[in-house]
Amino acid sequence: MSARSQTIVPLKLRCELSLAIPASLVLDVPHLREKTFRVGLIGRAAAIFRVDEIIVFPDLPDKNQSRDIRLVSTILSYMETPQYLRKRLFKIRPELRYVGVLPPLRTPHHPLSDRTENLKVGEHREGVVTSLVKDGALVDIGVERPVLVPDTRLPVNNRVTVRITGLGKTPKAVLASRGEIKTYWGYRVKVSEVPFGQLLKNRSFDLVIATSRRGVPLIEVMNKLAKRWKSSRRTLVTFGAPTQGLYEIAAHEHLNLDEVAHFVINTIPGQGAETVRTEEALYASLAVLNLLDGV
Amino acid sequence: MSARSQTIVPLKLRCELSLAIPASLVLDVPHLREKTFRVGLIGRAAAIFRVDEIIVFPDLPDKNQSRDIRLVSTILSYMETPQYLRKRLFKIRPELRYVGVLPPLRTPHHPLSDRTENLKVGEHREGVVTSLVKDGALVDIGVERPVLVPDTRLPVNNRVTVRITGLGKTPKAVLASRGEIKTYWGYRVKVSEVPFGQLLKNRSFDLVIATSRRGVPLIEVMNKLAKRWKSSRRTLVTFGAPTQGLYEIAAHEHLNLDEVAHFVINTIPGQGAETVRTEEALYASLAVLNLLDGV
Repeated sequence: MSARSQTIVPLKLRCELSLAIPASLVLDVPHLREKTFRVGLIGRAAAIFRVDEIIVFPDLPDKNQSRDIRLVSTILSYMETPQYLRKRLFKIRPELRYVGVLPPLRTPHHPLSDRTENLKVGEHREGVVTSLVKDGALVDIGVERPVLVPDTRLPVNNRVTVRITGLGKTPKAVLASRGEIKTYWGYRVKVSEVPFGQLLKNRSFDLVIATSRRGVPLIEVMNKLAKRWKSSRRTLVTFGAPTQGLYEIAAHEHLNLDEVAHFVINTIPGQGAETVRTEEALYASLAVLNLLDGV
Repeated sequence: MSARSQTIVPLKLRCELSLAIPASLVLDVPHLREKTFRVGLIGRAAAIFRVDEIIVFPDLPDKNQSRDIRLVSTILSYMETPQYLRKRLFKIRPELRYVGVLPPLRTPHHPLSDRTENLKVGEHREGVVTSLVKDGALVDIGVERPVLVPDTRLPVNNRVTVRITGLGKTPKAVLASRGEIKTYWGYRVKVSEVPFGQLLKNRSFDLVIATSRRGVPLIEVMNKLAKRWKSSRRTLVTFGAPTQGLYEIAAHEHLNLDEVAHFVINTIPGQGAETVRTEEALYASLAVLNLLDGV
Protein backbone atom coordinates (compact mmCIF):
# COMPACT_ATOMS: atom_id res chain seq x y z
CA MET A 1 0.00 0.00 0.00
CA SER A 2 2.69 2.50 -0.83
CA ALA A 3 1.95 5.43 -3.03
CA ARG A 4 5.16 7.12 -3.92
CA SER A 5 3.82 8.56 -7.10
CA GLN A 6 1.11 10.58 -5.40
CA THR A 7 0.95 12.22 -2.02
CA ILE A 8 -2.51 12.16 -0.52
CA VAL A 9 -2.79 14.27 2.58
CA PRO A 10 -5.01 12.50 5.12
CA LEU A 11 -7.75 14.65 6.62
CA LYS A 12 -8.70 14.37 10.26
CA LEU A 13 -11.55 12.03 11.17
CA ARG A 14 -14.83 13.82 11.73
CA CYS A 15 -14.85 12.87 15.40
CA GLU A 16 -12.16 13.12 18.06
CA LEU A 17 -11.05 9.51 18.36
CA SER A 18 -9.53 8.28 21.62
CA LEU A 19 -8.18 4.83 22.42
CA ALA A 20 -7.90 3.36 25.89
CA ILE A 21 -5.35 0.56 26.33
CA PRO A 22 -4.38 -1.37 29.46
CA ALA A 23 -0.84 -1.08 30.82
CA SER A 24 -0.47 -4.85 31.10
CA LEU A 25 -0.30 -5.19 27.34
CA VAL A 26 3.49 -5.40 27.66
CA LEU A 27 3.41 -7.80 30.58
CA ASP A 28 3.81 -11.08 28.72
CA VAL A 29 6.98 -10.22 26.80
CA PRO A 30 10.03 -10.21 29.05
CA HIS A 31 12.54 -8.24 26.98
CA LEU A 32 12.42 -4.47 26.60
CA ARG A 33 13.32 -4.79 22.94
CA GLU A 34 10.13 -6.75 22.18
CA LYS A 35 8.07 -4.52 24.49
CA THR A 36 9.33 -1.54 22.48
CA PHE A 37 8.45 -3.22 19.20
CA ARG A 38 4.98 -4.02 20.49
CA VAL A 39 4.32 -0.46 21.65
CA GLY A 40 5.64 0.62 18.26
CA LEU A 41 2.81 -1.31 16.61
CA ILE A 42 0.30 0.55 18.73
CA GLY A 43 1.73 3.92 17.77
CA ARG A 44 1.70 2.89 14.12
CA ALA A 45 -1.90 1.67 14.29
CA ALA A 46 -2.94 4.95 15.93
CA ALA A 47 -1.30 6.94 13.15
CA ILE A 48 -2.66 4.78 10.33
CA PHE A 49 -6.20 5.08 11.66
CA ARG A 50 -5.91 8.77 12.60
CA VAL A 51 -6.35 8.44 16.34
CA ASP A 52 -6.26 11.72 18.30
CA GLU A 53 -5.53 10.42 21.77
CA ILE A 54 -4.17 7.29 23.41
CA ILE A 55 -5.03 6.76 27.07
CA VAL A 56 -3.00 4.21 29.02
CA PHE A 57 -4.86 2.91 32.07
CA PRO A 58 -3.93 0.62 34.98
CA ASP A 59 -5.81 -2.69 34.74
CA LEU A 60 -4.37 -4.88 37.50
CA PRO A 61 -5.80 -3.75 40.85
CA ASP A 62 -3.29 -5.71 42.93
CA LYS A 63 -0.21 -4.50 41.17
CA ASN A 64 1.74 -1.29 40.95
CA GLN A 65 1.86 -0.75 37.20
CA SER A 66 3.56 2.62 37.19
CA ARG A 67 6.63 1.23 35.44
CA ASP A 68 4.66 -0.30 32.58
CA ILE A 69 2.49 2.78 32.28
CA ARG A 70 5.58 4.95 32.02
CA LEU A 71 7.14 2.59 29.52
CA VAL A 72 4.13 2.49 27.21
CA SER A 73 3.34 6.20 27.42
CA THR A 74 6.94 7.33 27.01
CA ILE A 75 7.54 5.20 23.94
CA LEU A 76 4.25 6.31 22.38
CA SER A 77 5.11 9.98 23.03
CA TYR A 78 8.58 9.50 21.63
CA MET A 79 7.19 8.00 18.43
CA GLU A 80 4.70 10.80 18.02
CA THR A 81 7.39 13.48 18.34
CA PRO A 82 8.96 14.52 15.03
CA GLN A 83 12.46 13.11 14.77
CA TYR A 84 14.16 16.51 14.76
CA LEU A 85 12.65 17.36 18.17
CA ARG A 86 13.36 14.12 19.98
CA LYS A 87 16.87 14.89 21.21
CA ARG A 88 15.69 18.12 22.76
CA LEU A 89 12.52 16.77 24.34
CA PHE A 90 13.63 13.34 25.57
CA LYS A 91 16.52 12.78 27.89
CA ILE A 92 18.27 9.44 27.73
CA ARG A 93 16.06 7.14 29.75
CA PRO A 94 16.24 3.40 30.31
CA GLU A 95 12.84 2.80 28.70
CA LEU A 96 14.06 4.43 25.49
CA ARG A 97 16.98 2.09 25.07
CA TYR A 98 15.56 0.28 22.03
CA VAL A 99 13.79 3.11 20.23
CA GLY A 100 16.02 2.33 17.28
CA VAL A 101 13.63 -0.53 16.41
CA LEU A 102 10.62 1.78 16.23
CA PRO A 103 9.19 2.33 12.76
CA PRO A 104 8.62 5.94 11.66
CA LEU A 105 5.02 7.17 11.75
CA ARG A 106 5.15 8.86 8.33
CA THR A 107 2.33 11.23 9.29
CA PRO A 108 1.91 14.75 7.86
CA HIS A 109 3.31 16.30 11.06
CA HIS A 110 6.60 14.45 10.54
CA PRO A 111 7.78 16.32 7.42
CA LEU A 112 10.61 14.81 5.44
CA SER A 113 12.01 18.14 4.26
CA ASP A 114 14.62 19.82 6.48
CA ARG A 115 15.36 22.79 4.21
CA THR A 116 14.35 26.39 4.86
CA GLU A 117 13.97 26.93 1.11
CA ASN A 118 11.23 24.30 0.96
CA LEU A 119 9.03 26.00 3.57
CA LYS A 120 5.73 27.40 2.35
CA VAL A 121 3.62 30.20 3.77
CA GLY A 122 0.65 28.66 5.56
CA GLU A 123 2.47 25.39 6.28
CA HIS A 124 2.21 24.01 9.80
CA ARG A 125 5.21 22.52 11.59
CA GLU A 126 5.88 21.14 15.02
CA GLY A 127 8.65 22.91 16.86
CA VAL A 128 10.33 23.58 20.16
CA VAL A 129 11.36 26.91 21.67
CA THR A 130 15.16 27.11 21.72
CA SER A 131 15.67 30.62 23.05
CA LEU A 132 13.97 33.94 23.68
CA VAL A 133 15.17 37.06 21.87
CA LYS A 134 14.10 40.66 21.97
CA ASP A 135 11.51 40.27 19.20
CA GLY A 136 10.01 36.98 20.35
CA ALA A 137 10.89 33.31 20.51
CA LEU A 138 13.17 31.27 18.30
CA VAL A 139 11.64 27.94 17.44
CA ASP A 140 13.41 24.91 15.99
CA ILE A 141 11.11 23.45 13.34
CA GLY A 142 13.61 21.02 11.85
CA VAL A 143 15.18 23.23 9.20
CA GLU A 144 18.71 24.74 9.16
CA ARG A 145 17.97 27.67 11.46
CA PRO A 146 15.22 28.36 13.99
CA VAL A 147 12.29 30.51 12.87
CA LEU A 148 11.21 33.65 14.71
CA VAL A 149 7.81 33.71 16.34
CA PRO A 150 7.37 37.42 17.07
CA ASP A 151 5.94 38.78 20.31
CA THR A 152 5.92 35.43 22.04
CA ARG A 153 7.37 34.53 25.41
CA LEU A 154 7.27 30.82 26.06
CA PRO A 155 9.54 28.66 28.17
CA VAL A 156 12.56 27.23 26.40
CA ASN A 157 11.97 23.59 25.43
CA ASN A 158 8.23 24.12 25.14
CA ARG A 159 6.79 22.15 22.25
CA VAL A 160 4.63 24.25 19.96
CA THR A 161 2.77 24.08 16.69
CA VAL A 162 3.46 26.98 14.36
CA ARG A 163 2.22 28.25 11.03
CA ILE A 164 4.75 29.77 8.65
CA THR A 165 3.93 33.39 7.83
CA GLY A 166 7.08 34.68 6.15
CA LEU A 167 9.91 33.19 4.15
CA GLY A 168 13.38 34.42 3.31
CA LYS A 169 16.58 34.30 5.30
CA THR A 170 14.87 34.44 8.69
CA PRO A 171 11.46 32.88 8.18
CA LYS A 172 8.69 33.91 10.52
CA ALA A 173 5.86 31.97 12.04
CA VAL A 174 2.95 32.35 14.46
CA LEU A 175 1.72 29.97 17.11
CA ALA A 176 -1.07 27.78 15.80
CA SER A 177 -3.69 25.66 17.44
CA ARG A 178 -4.05 22.04 16.46
CA GLY A 179 -7.72 22.70 15.93
CA GLU A 180 -7.08 24.90 12.90
CA ILE A 181 -5.21 22.12 11.10
CA LYS A 182 -7.35 20.07 8.77
CA THR A 183 -4.91 17.24 8.15
CA TYR A 184 -4.32 14.45 10.63
CA TRP A 185 -1.77 15.78 13.10
CA GLY A 186 -0.72 12.88 15.35
CA TYR A 187 -2.00 11.73 18.72
CA ARG A 188 -1.73 12.92 22.30
CA VAL A 189 -0.73 10.45 25.00
CA LYS A 190 -2.52 10.52 28.36
CA VAL A 191 -1.85 8.49 31.44
CA SER A 192 -4.92 7.58 33.44
CA GLU A 193 -4.28 7.45 37.17
CA VAL A 194 -7.60 5.69 37.67
CA PRO A 195 -8.75 2.33 36.37
CA PHE A 196 -11.06 1.70 33.44
CA GLY A 197 -14.49 2.31 34.98
CA GLN A 198 -13.43 5.46 36.78
CA LEU A 199 -11.83 6.72 33.60
CA LEU A 200 -15.14 6.37 31.76
CA LYS A 201 -16.88 8.30 34.53
CA ASN A 202 -14.32 11.11 34.64
CA ARG A 203 -14.23 11.78 30.94
CA SER A 204 -17.21 12.52 28.77
CA PHE A 205 -17.42 10.60 25.54
CA ASP A 206 -20.46 10.64 23.27
CA LEU A 207 -19.75 7.10 22.21
CA VAL A 208 -17.87 4.34 24.03
CA ILE A 209 -17.06 1.23 22.00
CA ALA A 210 -15.59 -1.68 23.91
CA THR A 211 -13.97 -4.59 22.07
CA SER A 212 -14.36 -8.10 23.37
CA ARG A 213 -14.43 -11.61 22.04
CA ARG A 214 -17.72 -11.92 23.90
CA GLY A 215 -19.19 -8.85 22.21
CA VAL A 216 -21.72 -8.70 19.36
CA PRO A 217 -20.24 -9.32 15.91
CA LEU A 218 -19.77 -5.88 14.42
CA ILE A 219 -21.75 -6.72 11.33
CA GLU A 220 -24.92 -7.19 13.40
CA VAL A 221 -24.86 -3.65 14.72
CA MET A 222 -23.09 -2.02 11.81
CA ASN A 223 -25.78 0.40 10.69
CA LYS A 224 -26.73 1.41 14.21
CA LEU A 225 -23.11 1.90 15.13
CA ALA A 226 -22.33 3.81 11.93
CA LYS A 227 -25.11 6.26 12.75
CA ARG A 228 -23.77 6.85 16.25
CA TRP A 229 -20.20 7.02 14.95
CA LYS A 230 -21.09 9.77 12.51
CA SER A 231 -22.95 11.93 15.01
CA SER A 232 -20.44 11.46 17.83
CA ARG A 233 -17.97 14.26 18.48
CA ARG A 234 -15.86 12.33 20.97
CA THR A 235 -15.53 8.61 20.53
CA LEU A 236 -13.59 6.18 22.70
CA VAL A 237 -12.56 2.73 21.54
CA THR A 238 -11.23 0.57 24.32
CA PHE A 239 -9.26 -2.67 24.47
CA GLY A 240 -8.44 -5.49 26.86
CA ALA A 241 -5.10 -7.13 27.55
CA PRO A 242 -3.77 -10.53 26.41
CA THR A 243 -4.33 -11.96 29.89
CA GLN A 244 -7.73 -10.46 30.62
CA GLY A 245 -10.51 -9.08 28.50
CA LEU A 246 -12.51 -5.93 29.15
CA TYR A 247 -15.32 -7.81 30.91
CA GLU A 248 -12.79 -9.01 33.49
CA ILE A 249 -11.18 -5.58 33.71
CA ALA A 250 -14.56 -3.92 34.31
CA ALA A 251 -15.40 -6.57 36.90
CA HIS A 252 -12.47 -5.46 39.08
CA GLU A 253 -14.55 -2.35 39.75
CA HIS A 254 -17.78 -4.36 40.03
CA LEU A 255 -18.96 -2.99 36.71
CA ASN A 256 -20.78 -4.72 33.91
CA LEU A 257 -19.12 -3.83 30.62
CA ASP A 258 -22.47 -3.87 28.83
CA GLU A 259 -23.67 -1.07 31.12
CA VAL A 260 -20.64 1.22 30.88
CA ALA A 261 -20.07 0.94 27.12
CA HIS A 262 -22.57 1.90 24.42
CA PHE A 263 -21.44 -0.99 22.25
CA VAL A 264 -19.47 -4.12 23.08
CA ILE A 265 -18.35 -5.50 19.75
CA ASN A 266 -16.44 -8.50 18.54
CA THR A 267 -14.40 -7.33 15.60
CA ILE A 268 -12.88 -10.76 14.89
CA PRO A 269 -15.76 -13.25 14.77
CA GLY A 270 -14.51 -16.83 14.55
CA GLN A 271 -10.96 -15.98 15.59
CA GLY A 272 -8.64 -18.91 14.79
CA ALA A 273 -6.25 -18.20 17.66
CA GLU A 274 -7.38 -18.62 21.26
CA THR A 275 -6.29 -15.13 22.26
CA VAL A 276 -5.79 -11.91 20.37
CA ARG A 277 -3.31 -9.46 21.77
CA THR A 278 -4.01 -5.78 22.27
CA GLU A 279 -1.95 -4.53 19.35
CA GLU A 280 -3.50 -7.13 17.06
CA ALA A 281 -7.00 -6.23 18.19
CA LEU A 282 -6.14 -2.58 17.58
CA TYR A 283 -5.37 -3.08 13.89
CA ALA A 284 -8.37 -5.33 13.34
CA SER A 285 -10.84 -3.18 15.25
CA LEU A 286 -9.72 0.17 13.95
CA ALA A 287 -9.82 -1.21 10.41
CA VAL A 288 -13.45 -2.28 10.68
CA LEU A 289 -14.45 0.89 12.52
CA ASN A 290 -12.69 3.00 9.89
CA LEU A 291 -15.13 1.48 7.38
CA LEU A 292 -18.04 3.04 9.24
CA ASP A 293 -16.99 6.47 8.08
CA GLY A 294 -18.06 5.42 4.60
CA VAL A 295 -21.22 3.41 5.41
CA MET B 1 -10.12 -10.42 23.68
CA SER B 2 -9.20 -13.33 25.87
CA ALA B 3 -11.76 -15.90 26.80
CA ARG B 4 -10.31 -18.13 29.44
CA SER B 5 -13.65 -18.99 30.86
CA GLN B 6 -14.96 -20.50 27.66
CA THR B 7 -13.24 -22.34 24.86
CA ILE B 8 -14.81 -21.71 21.50
CA VAL B 9 -13.40 -23.96 18.81
CA PRO B 10 -13.02 -21.98 15.59
CA LEU B 11 -14.49 -23.61 12.51
CA LYS B 12 -12.74 -23.41 9.17
CA LEU B 13 -13.76 -20.63 6.79
CA ARG B 14 -16.16 -21.76 4.08
CA CYS B 15 -13.57 -21.11 1.40
CA GLU B 16 -9.94 -22.09 1.13
CA LEU B 17 -8.19 -18.83 1.90
CA SER B 18 -4.70 -18.18 0.53
CA LEU B 19 -2.50 -15.17 1.07
CA ALA B 20 0.28 -14.04 -1.24
CA ILE B 21 2.99 -11.88 0.30
CA PRO B 22 6.13 -10.42 -1.28
CA ALA B 23 9.55 -11.52 -0.03
CA SER B 24 10.76 -7.95 0.28
CA LEU B 25 8.51 -7.37 3.27
CA VAL B 26 11.53 -7.97 5.51
CA LEU B 27 13.88 -5.82 3.44
CA ASP B 28 13.62 -2.57 5.37
CA VAL B 29 14.50 -3.91 8.82
CA PRO B 30 18.20 -4.71 9.09
CA HIS B 31 18.27 -6.99 12.14
CA LEU B 32 17.18 -10.62 12.05
CA ARG B 33 15.50 -10.21 15.42
CA GLU B 34 13.10 -7.59 14.07
CA LYS B 35 12.65 -9.51 10.82
CA THR B 36 11.64 -12.52 12.92
CA PHE B 37 9.21 -10.46 14.95
CA ARG B 38 7.67 -9.07 11.79
CA VAL B 39 7.22 -12.49 10.20
CA GLY B 40 5.74 -13.55 13.54
CA LEU B 41 3.01 -10.96 13.10
CA ILE B 42 2.17 -12.43 9.71
CA GLY B 43 1.89 -15.94 11.12
CA ARG B 44 -0.31 -14.66 13.91
CA ALA B 45 -2.56 -12.73 11.53
CA ALA B 46 -2.92 -15.83 9.37
CA ALA B 47 -3.95 -17.92 12.39
CA ILE B 48 -6.33 -15.31 13.79
CA PHE B 49 -8.12 -14.98 10.44
CA ARG B 50 -8.04 -18.71 9.64
CA VAL B 51 -5.87 -18.60 6.56
CA ASP B 52 -5.18 -21.96 4.89
CA GLU B 53 -2.12 -21.10 2.86
CA ILE B 54 0.58 -18.45 2.75
CA ILE B 55 2.44 -18.04 -0.54
CA VAL B 56 5.72 -16.11 -0.49
CA PHE B 57 6.63 -14.70 -3.89
CA PRO B 58 9.66 -12.87 -5.30
CA ASP B 59 8.81 -9.24 -6.10
CA LEU B 60 12.10 -7.61 -7.07
CA PRO B 61 13.01 -8.70 -10.62
CA ASP B 62 16.60 -7.45 -10.41
CA LYS B 63 17.45 -9.13 -7.14
CA ASN B 64 18.10 -12.62 -5.97
CA GLN B 65 15.61 -12.89 -3.11
CA SER B 66 16.15 -16.54 -2.26
CA ARG B 67 17.55 -15.67 1.16
CA ASP B 68 14.57 -13.55 2.17
CA ILE B 69 12.15 -16.10 0.74
CA ARG B 70 13.80 -18.84 2.78
CA LEU B 71 13.80 -16.65 5.87
CA VAL B 72 10.10 -15.76 5.65
CA SER B 73 8.91 -19.23 4.69
CA THR B 74 11.04 -21.05 7.26
CA ILE B 75 9.92 -18.85 10.14
CA LEU B 76 6.27 -19.14 9.08
CA SER B 77 6.55 -22.94 8.87
CA TYR B 78 8.28 -23.09 12.22
CA MET B 79 5.49 -21.09 13.86
CA GLU B 80 2.83 -23.29 12.32
CA THR B 81 4.46 -26.47 13.62
CA PRO B 82 3.23 -27.57 17.06
CA GLN B 83 5.92 -26.89 19.63
CA TYR B 84 6.45 -30.56 20.47
CA LEU B 85 7.40 -31.34 16.86
CA ARG B 86 9.75 -28.45 16.21
CA LYS B 87 12.96 -30.01 17.49
CA ARG B 88 12.45 -33.04 15.30
CA LEU B 89 11.45 -31.17 12.16
CA PHE B 90 13.76 -28.16 12.22
CA LYS B 91 17.52 -28.41 12.40
CA ILE B 92 19.36 -25.49 13.92
CA ARG B 93 19.54 -22.93 11.14
CA PRO B 94 20.80 -19.36 11.13
CA GLU B 95 17.39 -17.97 10.16
CA LEU B 96 15.84 -19.55 13.26
CA ARG B 97 18.17 -17.83 15.67
CA TYR B 98 15.53 -15.54 17.17
CA VAL B 99 12.48 -17.80 17.15
CA GLY B 100 12.33 -17.27 20.90
CA VAL B 101 10.62 -13.94 20.22
CA LEU B 102 7.82 -15.56 18.22
CA PRO B 103 4.41 -15.54 19.87
CA PRO B 104 2.54 -18.86 20.05
CA LEU B 105 -0.28 -19.32 17.53
CA ARG B 106 -2.75 -20.75 20.08
CA THR B 107 -4.68 -22.56 17.34
CA PRO B 108 -6.64 -25.81 17.85
CA HIS B 109 -3.83 -27.83 16.24
CA HIS B 110 -1.40 -26.66 18.91
CA PRO B 111 -2.96 -28.50 21.88
CA LEU B 112 -1.88 -27.46 25.34
CA SER B 113 -2.29 -30.93 26.87
CA ASP B 114 0.72 -33.26 26.77
CA ARG B 115 -0.81 -36.17 28.72
CA THR B 116 -1.87 -39.52 27.27
CA GLU B 117 -4.69 -39.68 29.81
CA ASN B 118 -6.27 -36.54 28.35
CA LEU B 119 -6.52 -37.94 24.82
CA LYS B 120 -10.01 -38.53 23.48
CA VAL B 121 -11.19 -40.94 20.82
CA GLY B 122 -11.89 -38.96 17.65
CA GLU B 123 -9.42 -36.22 18.56
CA HIS B 124 -7.03 -35.05 15.85
CA ARG B 125 -3.38 -34.35 16.55
CA GLU B 126 -0.37 -33.39 14.52
CA GLY B 127 2.51 -35.84 14.79
CA VAL B 128 5.76 -37.06 13.33
CA VAL B 129 6.80 -40.65 12.59
CA THR B 130 9.55 -41.62 15.01
CA SER B 131 10.09 -45.28 14.03
CA LEU B 132 8.58 -48.19 12.19
CA VAL B 133 7.64 -51.35 14.07
CA LYS B 134 6.20 -54.67 13.02
CA ASP B 135 2.58 -53.55 13.45
CA GLY B 136 2.90 -50.10 11.89
CA ALA B 137 4.39 -46.70 12.64
CA LEU B 138 5.04 -45.03 15.96
CA VAL B 139 4.05 -41.40 15.89
CA ASP B 140 4.99 -38.69 18.38
CA ILE B 141 1.89 -36.60 19.00
CA GLY B 142 3.23 -34.64 21.94
CA VAL B 143 2.21 -36.94 24.80
CA GLU B 144 4.45 -39.12 26.98
CA ARG B 145 4.80 -42.02 24.54
CA PRO B 146 4.31 -42.29 20.77
CA VAL B 147 1.01 -43.73 19.54
CA LEU B 148 0.77 -46.69 17.21
CA VAL B 149 -0.65 -46.15 13.75
CA PRO B 150 -1.26 -49.77 12.61
CA ASP B 151 -0.47 -51.03 9.12
CA THR B 152 1.32 -47.89 8.08
CA ARG B 153 4.76 -47.56 6.53
CA LEU B 154 5.85 -43.97 6.29
CA PRO B 155 9.33 -42.46 6.34
CA VAL B 156 10.68 -41.56 9.76
CA ASN B 157 10.36 -37.81 10.43
CA ASN B 158 7.33 -37.53 8.15
CA ARG B 159 4.81 -35.10 9.57
CA VAL B 160 1.30 -36.54 9.71
CA THR B 161 -2.15 -35.73 10.98
CA VAL B 162 -3.76 -38.55 12.97
CA ARG B 163 -7.10 -39.30 14.58
CA ILE B 164 -7.09 -41.11 17.90
CA THR B 165 -8.97 -44.43 17.70
CA GLY B 166 -8.01 -46.22 20.89
CA LEU B 167 -6.95 -45.19 24.39
CA GLY B 168 -5.21 -47.05 27.16
CA LYS B 169 -1.55 -47.74 27.75
CA THR B 170 -0.63 -47.77 24.06
CA PRO B 171 -3.12 -45.50 22.35
CA LYS B 172 -3.86 -46.12 18.72
CA ALA B 173 -4.53 -43.76 15.85
CA VAL B 174 -5.16 -43.70 12.13
CA LEU B 175 -3.85 -41.31 9.50
CA ALA B 176 -6.30 -38.50 8.87
CA SER B 177 -6.71 -36.01 6.08
CA ARG B 178 -6.86 -32.32 6.91
CA GLY B 179 -10.03 -32.17 4.85
CA GLU B 180 -11.97 -34.23 7.39
CA ILE B 181 -11.23 -31.76 10.19
CA LYS B 182 -13.89 -29.16 10.74
CA THR B 183 -11.94 -26.85 13.01
CA TYR B 184 -9.32 -24.45 11.74
CA TRP B 185 -6.10 -26.43 11.42
CA GLY B 186 -3.30 -23.99 10.65
CA TYR B 187 -1.78 -22.86 7.37
CA ARG B 188 0.50 -24.36 4.74
CA VAL B 189 3.49 -22.37 3.54
CA LYS B 190 4.36 -22.32 -0.16
CA VAL B 191 7.26 -20.72 -1.90
CA SER B 192 6.52 -19.36 -5.33
CA GLU B 193 9.45 -19.63 -7.73
CA VAL B 194 7.70 -17.30 -10.13
CA PRO B 195 6.70 -13.66 -9.66
CA PHE B 196 3.25 -12.35 -8.90
CA GLY B 197 1.61 -12.37 -12.33
CA GLN B 198 2.92 -15.79 -13.25
CA LEU B 199 1.75 -17.11 -9.89
CA LEU B 200 -1.80 -15.97 -10.63
CA LYS B 201 -1.65 -17.70 -14.02
CA ASN B 202 -0.28 -20.97 -12.67
CA ARG B 203 -2.77 -21.36 -9.85
CA SER B 204 -6.51 -21.30 -10.22
CA PHE B 205 -8.39 -19.15 -7.77
CA ASP B 206 -12.09 -18.38 -8.03
CA LEU B 207 -11.54 -14.99 -6.50
CA VAL B 208 -8.42 -12.82 -6.41
CA ILE B 209 -8.51 -9.80 -4.13
CA ALA B 210 -5.60 -7.40 -4.37
CA THR B 211 -5.04 -4.76 -1.72
CA SER B 212 -3.75 -1.35 -2.67
CA ARG B 213 -3.97 2.19 -1.45
CA ARG B 214 -5.07 3.04 -4.97
CA GLY B 215 -7.88 0.47 -4.88
CA VAL B 216 -11.60 1.06 -4.41
CA PRO B 217 -12.66 1.63 -0.79
CA LEU B 218 -13.99 -1.73 0.38
CA ILE B 219 -17.29 -0.27 1.49
CA GLU B 220 -18.15 0.70 -2.11
CA VAL B 221 -17.97 -2.88 -3.35
CA MET B 222 -18.90 -4.61 -0.12
CA ASN B 223 -22.08 -6.33 -1.22
CA LYS B 224 -20.70 -7.40 -4.57
CA LEU B 225 -17.54 -8.68 -2.93
CA ALA B 226 -19.45 -10.46 -0.17
CA LYS B 227 -21.45 -12.36 -2.79
CA ARG B 228 -18.31 -13.46 -4.60
CA TRP B 229 -16.60 -14.25 -1.30
CA LYS B 230 -19.38 -16.58 -0.25
CA SER B 231 -19.56 -18.49 -3.51
CA SER B 232 -15.80 -18.77 -3.97
CA ARG B 233 -14.11 -22.04 -3.07
CA ARG B 234 -10.57 -20.79 -3.44
CA THR B 235 -9.86 -17.20 -2.59
CA LEU B 236 -6.55 -15.39 -2.78
CA VAL B 237 -5.84 -12.15 -0.96
CA THR B 238 -2.62 -10.53 -2.01
CA PHE B 239 -0.42 -7.78 -0.59
CA GLY B 240 2.30 -5.39 -1.66
CA ALA B 241 5.52 -4.49 0.12
CA PRO B 242 6.45 -1.39 2.13
CA THR B 243 8.62 -0.14 -0.76
CA GLN B 244 6.31 -0.96 -3.66
CA GLY B 245 2.60 -1.57 -3.97
CA LEU B 246 0.92 -4.28 -6.01
CA TYR B 247 0.41 -2.01 -9.03
CA GLU B 248 4.17 -1.56 -9.22
CA ILE B 249 4.79 -5.26 -8.60
CA ALA B 250 2.38 -6.22 -11.40
CA ALA B 251 4.00 -3.66 -13.70
CA HIS B 252 7.33 -5.52 -13.50
CA GLU B 253 5.60 -8.18 -15.60
CA HIS B 254 3.85 -5.57 -17.76
CA LEU B 255 0.56 -6.42 -16.15
CA ASN B 256 -2.25 -4.15 -15.09
CA LEU B 257 -3.35 -5.09 -11.60
CA ASP B 258 -6.97 -4.24 -12.42
CA GLU B 259 -6.92 -6.90 -15.13
CA VAL B 260 -5.35 -9.73 -13.18
CA ALA B 261 -7.32 -9.30 -9.93
CA HIS B 262 -11.10 -9.51 -9.60
CA PHE B 263 -11.09 -6.75 -7.02
CA VAL B 264 -8.49 -4.18 -6.10
CA ILE B 265 -9.55 -2.79 -2.76
CA ASN B 266 -8.33 -0.16 -0.38
CA THR B 267 -9.00 -1.49 3.11
CA ILE B 268 -7.65 1.61 4.89
CA PRO B 269 -9.34 4.63 3.30
CA GLY B 270 -7.82 7.88 4.55
CA GLN B 271 -4.73 6.24 6.02
CA GLY B 272 -2.97 8.68 8.35
CA ALA B 273 0.51 7.29 7.68
CA GLU B 274 2.11 7.66 4.27
CA THR B 275 2.84 3.94 3.95
CA VAL B 276 1.32 0.84 5.46
CA ARG B 277 3.56 -2.18 5.84
CA THR B 278 2.61 -5.64 4.72
CA GLU B 279 1.97 -7.05 8.18
CA GLU B 280 -0.13 -4.04 9.10
CA ALA B 281 -2.13 -4.28 5.88
CA LEU B 282 -2.65 -7.97 6.63
CA TYR B 283 -4.39 -7.35 9.95
CA ALA B 284 -6.48 -4.50 8.58
CA SER B 285 -7.48 -6.24 5.35
CA LEU B 286 -8.19 -9.65 6.81
CA ALA B 287 -10.28 -8.01 9.53
CA VAL B 288 -12.55 -6.24 7.05
CA LEU B 289 -12.73 -9.27 4.76
CA ASN B 290 -13.58 -11.48 7.73
CA LEU B 291 -16.68 -9.32 8.15
CA LEU B 292 -17.92 -10.38 4.72
CA ASP B 293 -18.60 -13.86 6.02
CA GLY B 294 -21.45 -12.36 8.03
CA VAL B 295 -22.81 -9.81 5.50
